[in-house]
Amino acid sequence: MSDIYRIRAAAARGRGHVRRTPLLSAAALDKRAGRRVWVKAECLQVTGSFKARGAWAAVSALAPEELARGVLAFSSGNHAQGVAWAAAAHGAPAVILMPQDAPMVKIEGTKALGAEVVLYDRLTQDRAELGAELAGARGMTIIPPYDHPEVIAGQGTTGLEIAADAAEAGIRAAEVLVCCGGGGLASGIALALSAEAPDFSVRTVEPAGFDDMAQSLLAGDWRTNAQPTGSICDAILTPRPGRMTFPILRNLAGEGLAVTDDEALRAMSLAFAHLNVVLEPGGAVALAAALFHGEDLRAEDVIAVASGGNVEPSLFAQAITRHPA
Amino acid sequence: MSDIYRIRAAAARGRGHVRRTPLLSAAALDKRAGRRVWVKAECLQVTGSFKARGAWAAVSALAPEELARGVLAFSSGNHAQGVAWAAAAHGAPAVILMPQDAPMVKIEGTKALGAEVVLYDRLTQDRAELGAELAGARGMTIIPPYDHPEVIAGQGTTGLEIAADAAEAGIRAAEVLVCCGGGGLASGIALALSAEAPDFSVRTVEPAGFDDMAQSLLAGDWRTNAQPTGSICDAILTPRPGRMTFPILRNLAGEGLAVTDDEALRAMSLAFAHLNVVLEPGGAVALAAALFHGEDLRAEDVIAVASGGNVEPSLFAQAITRHPA
Repeated sequence: MSDIYRIRAAAARGRGHVRRTPLLSAAALDKRAGRRVWVKAECLQVTGSFKARGAWAAVSALAPEELARGVLAFSSGNHAQGVAWAAAAHGAPAVILMPQDAPMVKIEGTKALGAEVVLYDRLTQDRAELGAELAGARGMTIIPPYDHPEVIAGQGTTGLEIAADAAEAGIRAAEVLVCCGGGGLASGIALALSAEAPDFSVRTVEPAGFDDMAQSLLAGDWRTNAQPTGSICDAILTPRPGRMTFPILRNLAGEGLAVTDDEALRAMSLAFAHLNVVLEPGGAVALAAALFHGEDLRAEDVIAVASGGNVEPSLFAQAITRHPA
Repeated sequence: MSDIYRIRAAAARGRGHVRRTPLLSAAALDKRAGRRVWVKAECLQVTGSFKARGAWAAVSALAPEELARGVLAFSSGNHAQGVAWAAAAHGAPAVILMPQDAPMVKIEGTKALGAEVVLYDRLTQDRAELGAELAGARGMTIIPPYDHPEVIAGQGTTGLEIAADAAEAGIRAAEVLVCCGGGGLASGIALALSAEAPDFSVRTVEPAGFDDMAQSLLAGDWRTNAQPTGSICDAILTPRPGRMTFPILRNLAGEGLAVTDDEALRAMSLAFAHLNVVLEPGGAVALAAALFHGEDLRAEDVIAVASGGNVEPSLFAQAITRHPA
């Protein structure tokens, strides 16, 4: 099955479940960036992030007997909530492995969706090993956060919407900035756009110091971050690009970008002030790149994917009061 | 011209300018309310509130020579920004009369849109008189905040979208809760729904102690609030129902509702936590009624119009940290 066919099939299965999110803009942001800035507001997606798309695509592709045995996922929070939601809607049990240091709002959100949450230590335990063990004992299907064709296709449905909405807004060519952890969202969008809007280019955005994808794209081969943690962008801290996602992005994406935590907080504050949406730090990095790294961009129109908004109230309050727009 | 024809014409003129806002929902809100709660997110509208709709409808209906002389509006902030935006897009000068105690974020937002802002004292000056004087001197057209057929029609386009999106979501009958200052949004939506979704009923929502519309609906005649100010819901403090809007609502709306400032703040906090949208106090009263006044509601499906999100960072930070979801 070709990539675009798989993405279109994922979109068809998601209809009525996955939300079509709006493409927002504000004159004040355009002025600040010196170009037209569009924000694909995936923070308004079901469960508060784009992860619901990939989770729905993967879970809805399972056979009835697989659904009955249930699904398992490991995630710092947004993929956890996406899988818990998709599993519950399919009547399937879900076990989610989450790091102990995941934001409380994400742990609670996952539990509220009916999943069984198992916490692990990010520094001493191997989540893949632990997940395989748990899944094996119960016959559960693992839904990986990015290295899975259906997960990538599900995230790619974001790209179909971007292509359609951009065409309606009269945007002929654009750089599409996408936050990047393992690369599932960026690779899915890149595949969708290569078919539906070939004049659009995808650029990954990561936290400075955790830009394994940018480094890997430069090197043409997998590179690993020096540190596992240390940025407030918890949603997109992965040690190295995905096995399946990196080859796609090496083929289709431009040079990777990186922004500081401070820039992410300022982007959160500006999105609050001018778009009335709530972004989490990892969900704000693409907008931060659009606003503060214009020298690294070429297109007149830049589309920043605002990938999620699951953030602790205290951190959000700090962003909007200490980093005023 | 019939009401629904005028609303449809306003929608046609607004296409490509006024934003089609999403109908959001979250399982956690349904659970809290004990029924299905849908949120029409007008906080995501251009200029951050539904007021852009009525302003566009009124300004786009003017003749070229009227546009050249410019427009004038009096507003505590959201109508100001709507008119400033619509005027700028039509190349028309705009003068906006705003009360001195309007939130700084709204005064600055209006200036940023290119309007000339004139401040007045809400307690000692008559804004209508002042406005008529200024407009007369320059030959400007006054765009009233609610008592104007095109403004009501523009706000009514919200109702067209609600009817279409509700049909797609399989909602057959619903109570539609609408915040109410002068009644432009509520009366426009009531007119649209009476034509497009006659099984839906409109209920106005106001701040407790400032529920002149609810009191007037009860009495069947205009009633006036005892106090002019004293609620944090600055956007919807008007002394009495509009001359044109009240007869429409007397004919089409159910009993009016009222919520406390504390309930509005808690609704802001819950919308932050579960929908990732930013609401201002006046924009959160309908959601507050859906969540905390279920005993006064009848329908299984309730649609709350979240009318705006232009709020000072410090007040929003207070809402989400001191009124946890």
